[in-house]
Amino acid sequence: MSNCIFCKIAAGEIPANKLYEDDDMVAFHDIHPKAPVHFLLIPKQHVDSLAHCDASHQQMLGKLLLKAPQLAAEQGLSDGFKTAINTGVGGGQEVFHLHLHVLGNK
Amino acid sequence: MSNCIFCKIAAGEIPANKLYEDDDMVAFHDIHPKAPVHFLLIPKQHVDSLAHCDASHQQMLGKLLLKAPQLAAEQGLSDGFKTAINTGVGGGQEVFHLHLHVLGNK
Repeated sequence: MSNCIFCKIAAGEIPANKLYEDDDMVAFHDIHPKAPVHFLLIPKQHVDSLAHCDASHQQMLGKLLLKAPQLAAEQGLSDGFKTAINTGVGGGQEVFHLHLHVLGNK
Repeated sequence: MSNCIFCKIAAGEIPANKLYEDDDMVAFHDIHPKAPVHFLLIPKQHVDSLAHCDASHQQMLGKLLLKAPQLAAEQGLSDGFKTAINTGVGGGQEVFHLHLHVLGNK
């Protein structure tokens, strides 16, 4: 998606404070953190939201969730963390490229 | 897990207000809802938390996330919804059987 800010971050076309990247996904710190640690995990492949996912996205969704605790631990969230996906305007979604929030207090 | 309340709900040993069930997971309304619609999606197979998941759980995690928007739509959340997993005491987890919260306003 040529006008998607998260696609541009995934492609390295605009800067972000990345903490992880592989072939399928990238994680970067939220620019408006709502907790002492607040980063986002996104698939590199564009999909608007969780409501736009189908069976072809199942592996990617599982991979995002599995990566969250690994990165949370690396960020010092040994006592726990929250993960959240906001879907749709009524769900508080602001950027329409699927993203998983990971939040916690060190 | 013999003393896990969510395992007992999954096995039908204690009642819950279920809205979906298949071989792998069950969804039921939260008994202390924090939104007009608030239900939980759990795997029937016990796992303590997201931090206890490994690659063997990847398919199940993807399946949980894919089911959420389908059930949210059936519950009338056409404008959007939030999904959340709390992990560990510091993440606000209260029942140590992995569960995905789905919340929204009709």
